[in-house]
Amino acid sequence: MEKTPYIKAWQLDNEYGCHDTTLSFSTSSESSFKLWLSNKYKTIENLNESWSNVFWSMEYNSFEQIDLPNLTVTDANPIHELDFRRFSSEQVVKFNRAQVLIMREHTKMPLIHNYMGKITDFDHYEVGNDLDIASWDSYPLGFLEDRSTQNEDFKLKFMRFGDPDFQAFHHDLYRTVGRGRWWVMEQQPGPVNWAPYNPEPARGAVRLWSWEAIAHGAEVVSYFRWRQAPFAQEQMHAGLQRPDGESAPGLTQASQVNSELKEFDGIQQVQSKVAIIFDYESCWAWEIQPQGKDFSYFELVYEYYKALRSLGLSVDILPPNQKDLTGYKIVLAPGLMHFDTDLKAAIESFEGVLISGPRSGSKTLDMAIPKDLPPEVPGVVGTVASVESLRPNASILIKAGGSFNRWMETLVDCDNVIEECEDGRPALIGQTNRLYLTGWGNQEALTRIFRDACLSQNISTMDLPDCVRVRETHKHRFWFNYSEKETNVSSVSLPPSGVFWEPL
Amino acid sequence: MEKTPYIKAWQLDNEYGCHDTTLSFSTSSESSFKLWLSNKYKTIENLNESWSNVFWSMEYNSFEQIDLPNLTVTDANPIHELDFRRFSSEQVVKFNRAQVLIMREHTKMPLIHNYMGKITDFDHYEVGNDLDIASWDSYPLGFLEDRSTQNEDFKLKFMRFGDPDFQAFHHDLYRTVGRGRWWVMEQQPGPVNWAPYNPEPARGAVRLWSWEAIAHGAEVVSYFRWRQAPFAQEQMHAGLQRPDGESAPGLTQASQVNSELKEFDGIQQVQSKVAIIFDYESCWAWEIQPQGKDFSYFELVYEYYKALRSLGLSVDILPPNQKDLTGYKIVLAPGLMHFDTDLKAAIESFEGVLISGPRSGSKTLDMAIPKDLPPEVPGVVGTVASVESLRPNASILIKAGGSFNRWMETLVDCDNVIEECEDGRPALIGQTNRLYLTGWGNQEALTRIFRDACLSQNISTMDLPDCVRVRETHKHRFWFNYSEKETNVSSVSLPPSGVFWEPL
Amino acid sequence: MEKTPYIKAWQLDNEYGCHDTTLSFSTSSESSFKLWLSNKYKTIENLNESWSNVFWSMEYNSFEQIDLPNLTVTDANPIHELDFRRFSSEQVVKFNRAQVLIMREHTKMPLIHNYMGKITDFDHYEVGNDLDIASWDSYPLGFLEDRSTQNEDFKLKFMRFGDPDFQAFHHDLYRTVGRGRWWVMEQQPGPVNWAPYNPEPARGAVRLWSWEAIAHGAEVVSYFRWRQAPFAQEQMHAGLQRPDGESAPGLTQASQVNSELKEFDGIQQVQSKVAIIFDYESCWAWEIQPQGKDFSYFELVYEYYKALRSLGLSVDILPPNQKDLTGYKIVLAPGLMHFDTDLKAAIESFEGVLISGPRSGSKTLDMAIPKDLPPEVPGVVGTVASVESLRPNASILIKAGGSFNRWMETLVDCDNVIEECEDGRPALIGQTNRLYLTGWGNQEALTRIFRDACLSQNISTMDLPDCVRVRETHKHRFWFNYSEKETNVSSVSLPPSGVFWEPL
Repeated sequence: MEKTPYIKAWQLDNEYGCHDTTLSFSTSSESSFKLWLSNKYKTIENLNESWSNVFWSMEYNSFEQIDLPNLTVTDANPIHELDFRRFSSEQVVKFNRAQVLIMREHTKMPLIHNYMGKITDFDHYEVGNDLDIASWDSYPLGFLEDRSTQNEDFKLKFMRFGDPDFQAFHHDLYRTVGRGRWWVMEQQPGPVNWAPYNPEPARGAVRLWSWEAIAHGAEVVSYFRWRQAPFAQEQMHAGLQRPDGESAPGLTQASQVNSELKEFDGIQQVQSKVAIIFDYESCWAWEIQPQGKDFSYFELVYEYYKALRSLGLSVDILPPNQKDLTGYKIVLAPGLMHFDTDLKAAIESFEGVLISGPRSGSKTLDMAIPKDLPPEVPGVVGTVASVESLRPNASILIKAGGSFNRWMETLVDCDNVIEECEDGRPALIGQTNRLYLTGWGNQEALTRIFRDACLSQNISTMDLPDCVRVRETHKHRFWFNYSEKETNVSSVSLPPSGVFWEPL
Repeated sequence: MEKTPYIKAWQLDNEYGCHDTTLSFSTSSESSFKLWLSNKYKTIENLNESWSNVFWSMEYNSFEQIDLPNLTVTDANPIHELDFRRFSSEQVVKFNRAQVLIMREHTKMPLIHNYMGKITDFDHYEVGNDLDIASWDSYPLGFLEDRSTQNEDFKLKFMRFGDPDFQAFHHDLYRTVGRGRWWVMEQQPGPVNWAPYNPEPARGAVRLWSWEAIAHGAEVVSYFRWRQAPFAQEQMHAGLQRPDGESAPGLTQASQVNSELKEFDGIQQVQSKVAIIFDYESCWAWEIQPQGKDFSYFELVYEYYKALRSLGLSVDILPPNQKDLTGYKIVLAPGLMHFDTDLKAAIESFEGVLISGPRSGSKTLDMAIPKDLPPEVPGVVGTVASVESLRPNASILIKAGGSFNRWMETLVDCDNVIEECEDGRPALIGQTNRLYLTGWGNQEALTRIFRDACLSQNISTMDLPDCVRVRETHKHRFWFNYSEKETNVSSVSLPPSGVFWEPL
Repeated sequence: MEKTPYIKAWQLDNEYGCHDTTLSFSTSSESSFKLWLSNKYKTIENLNESWSNVFWSMEYNSFEQIDLPNLTVTDANPIHELDFRRFSSEQVVKFNRAQVLIMREHTKMPLIHNYMGKITDFDHYEVGNDLDIASWDSYPLGFLEDRSTQNEDFKLKFMRFGDPDFQAFHHDLYRTVGRGRWWVMEQQPGPVNWAPYNPEPARGAVRLWSWEAIAHGAEVVSYFRWRQAPFAQEQMHAGLQRPDGESAPGLTQASQVNSELKEFDGIQQVQSKVAIIFDYESCWAWEIQPQGKDFSYFELVYEYYKALRSLGLSVDILPPNQKDLTGYKIVLAPGLMHFDTDLKAAIESFEGVLISGPRSGSKTLDMAIPKDLPPEVPGVVGTVASVESLRPNASILIKAGGSFNRWMETLVDCDNVIEECEDGRPALIGQTNRLYLTGWGNQEALTRIFRDACLSQNISTMDLPDCVRVRETHKHRFWFNYSEKETNVSSVSLPPSGVFWEPL
């Protein structure tokens, strides 16, 4: 046990999955995968049945015959790939657990891992369940340049702030992964060294990011790094101090946050009225079978999230096996490949609005199309007769406003069609509290539909410019201005990089 | 021999060459290639002489020393590569023949293979000579997205129909490969699963494609697949039936074609007035030596074909060893690397117009520049003093209209210059019936020049919009409207996705 | 010793480094590299210290443990990479030297190697020191298409001439590499076969290129090749003769130059008033650590050079270990990673203007940030507090005109700020004769600042259009018109592709 009072927690390992380290196509991975399959399916007949290996005469005679799903002339069976992704994710979970078990023998302090942004190769909820606190490494500018798919104009506009929703999304995600307890382990304090372009943050951006993390419930905001190292790989990665020990701009801002925090006696989180489900398995499924090459589950959920945030809403992110939806008024489940038993039960007794689609409930756990065709979404009556993916310059207009892009389903036999496309196909179906969107809505369509749902649930909304975001805690509303210009929203005037809080 | 009356033909194998399976750089390929060379050249001295290995001191002492033409620091000798392409093509021919020989012992039914679109790695004429019927897998939307080089606007415009000339080109090609007998083995019936984007066909497009195939002589149009499989690799590939056994839109359209066919008692093909030569060896030669990185033999021939079709012409496609041109009034041979003895003899007695160039007759069979310089085209007098390839944003204007792009030759010592470029170089040379185009003409240039040639041969032409195409059979003219809008051409009014036939 | 009078010199080998042949990751390279390191550092403790291997616990216990700096999960230590680049460059130097030693035993004729354009993988000064004459292979059109990073409009404009500064830059560079003696070994005489696009040169361009080489001091301009070979790899590479032995356009122009030369009795070079330092090691350093993905040392120096040329200046290129700057009035050292002792001493006594920055003097020889922070530039007082790399669509405006792109430093503690950016940061600092630019200036900024420096040194400048360049020799000023249009500059009227000389 620790002899020193200065150890408050232990960080295990660093950024699991970063640098493409989850999926391994080594021979040891291959033999472990065979064993994993044999444990899962018991007999090769079960596996052949579950994988539908009758197709293309893919039946195996023994587990030994099964290769990793790479180096094939054409595609591997998608369930073959999905099982490999499940297996690979479990390897990360087990690797972390092995470290946890060792540490638990030596410490009573909380154990933490620092996750990354937009890394989805393993199930973070599963890893999180073995730890005490979640944390992540928040690099708003680096992530904007190296993993955002926003267009060039957007990236230019936000080059000194980062995408105004990217940090919040991960804050909200990892708050759930940490079961309420989470930190920012590495907060970008200045230009970094690893993105394609590494600009200086806007004046005040470090304070803005720090405050936003706190408003979303961070117990700690830690900056990486304290002092810039003058040598080796990370010598161009800024710290709170310059290599010569002088203060860098980030330090002043971090100090300011520290002072400002003194006027609060704790900032308590509350359950949001709106939640969105984020499921790692759906990420894998749609990477394996995007059907349209720009179909990304992460981006689909993220765009729903962005639309909610543009309405001024605070959002909780839920795992796909959530057992209880009590307290929520609106729950979104776009692209969720499969609704599990627990979630179905929770929805059964959920009195709020469930908005699903597109592609929700479209697969069995064996990555097949359900017998009665999708969507297999509790409370939604209709049949996906066919789906289409759309080239980037194509869109399907919705009569009530906005459009579908990338993905569009043709629904038939619906009990109720609420909105239609210009081409006559249903756009939004279902009964008041169980809605299904038939395509990938653009921001105009999503905000319009979500605003209507809020209205029906007496949730008040705003109409925020893309650089302003808000977050409500137990006693305050926090405002953030992701802009170097003063920005006014209703009666609130936000200075450049401004953070403003008001009592609720 | 078959005991059941339901077997009408046997399909051997599937889509030869698809998924990059013709060229192999394995050790067994290497040893076979050495043997093949030794059979072809008998002595290493002959090979050194034919390959001009004196260049860069590449002389070999034995066949054993010859590697496959890959993994070189700089380029391999182009004839080394071309011989490897010839060898690889022969492997496909022999592999098919081996299957044919087995089947002939067991059946008297016709043998068929299903070719693909824009696959040119092996000589389809050669494979076809061992079979009874040719067929191909026609995926108009998939091919538009995954292998067309048309621009984004074009692809958006035709995203629900496919390129209006792509299907016809292959119908005409495989009609020749099948020596008159051909099928569509797999007709796209709805969205598929393998292209970058997989949209729904326009309403009526399946009927349109089916009728177009029939008008071009298909004996059978077979749809892939009957019922969509709910599992494994192709679960997102539409069928005539949905996975639950209900009719999909393609089935209704296929049924309609079936009914409509009853008003015909056979649809007889006739020889076209216009023919274009398509040569697989030229494909290989210009892939090995494009000289400009966007020089593609397939695209060159295809653009000539498109220009002919925009004039309302029906076209036959001929192999490069065609012995007889009787009955044709115009024959085109763009980019044909070498005119073989049979073809030269046929041209000798051909009374119609031969239009060749650019790059026609520019190589010996050893892939060298002919001693007296190109073009070695029967009946054309002139010398290619030099050639240039042009960057995509460059073009050379032709005084009479249109321009050259990608490729331009400087011709000297011509007996007759018919057209000139703005820069003074010859654009079209030759005597009335033996023409040579000096560059890669755009559609404006090609249609103008082909229209003139038609006029000289009393062939009437039309001026079709890009979405309308026609095909003449023995007794009818068929019209096809590749558009979701009603389209009027002279006195013919075509409904959306319209097929219209009129007696001749 | 040579028995024939026709041998005037020997060319050793061909285009070192071309086709990616300098860096080798073979096992023999690995063992040689270990030995090289052991010779350089003597003890593993020294290496650990110099490389700062304490970072990320990278300490080695023996030289045997050190791998080549590839196949790492994340980056290798940049000094690990830089030492590998130094080692690899030395291999080229030693390989050349081995050939030199053999030849010296058999000949008294000068030894020459033919370098390439924009190849920077080895230190050409070092190779040059073992030879008697430098030469290079000048392919203005090929290089424009295959290695220029100018935009598409620029490339279209100059597709028949090449970039007007690219040839001159290499002429000036190799004049220094050859210690005053240099040739063009291969002058492009027509279209070549190896670039993505291979257009015909403009009428007169071969004469223009030849004259420009002569004006920059070429003792010989030799054309590649004499006669186009009709076979093998280079059959599409034009020569002075066509494959059939007839004259190609290049021959007429080469003959014209030969006649014109008769009116001169030698064309003597003089030291320029302006010089720019070009350093191969800085190339390697910034390739290893670009920090912004479009940061290229070659391009940085080249853009400075282009700006000087647009002012009508003749320029000398100097190595980074230049011992004497006497005679120069302006010396530029952009991006020079480290000022060595000789150069520092030369600057100490240099009375002209030194313009450095950005990124000059920013590293120790161990590729670390200097203890007192950059810039470590003699005579410049200021501190780089932080640096940022900018996305291509971002720029920082300079109050006095022009902008910074790609790269921007924040300088503090400067003794004198001469120019500022719109955002208030210093743009140009230093005392009159020791200037430091804080970012990557665009052409507007660079020409403005260089013009001011010229004014201060009584060097007269011009304002040339981008297609006109001049070069001064001992007795003449030569004018070159890189355009197919007649171009007038002050009183000089240049015909298309015109070369004009006037006495000074």
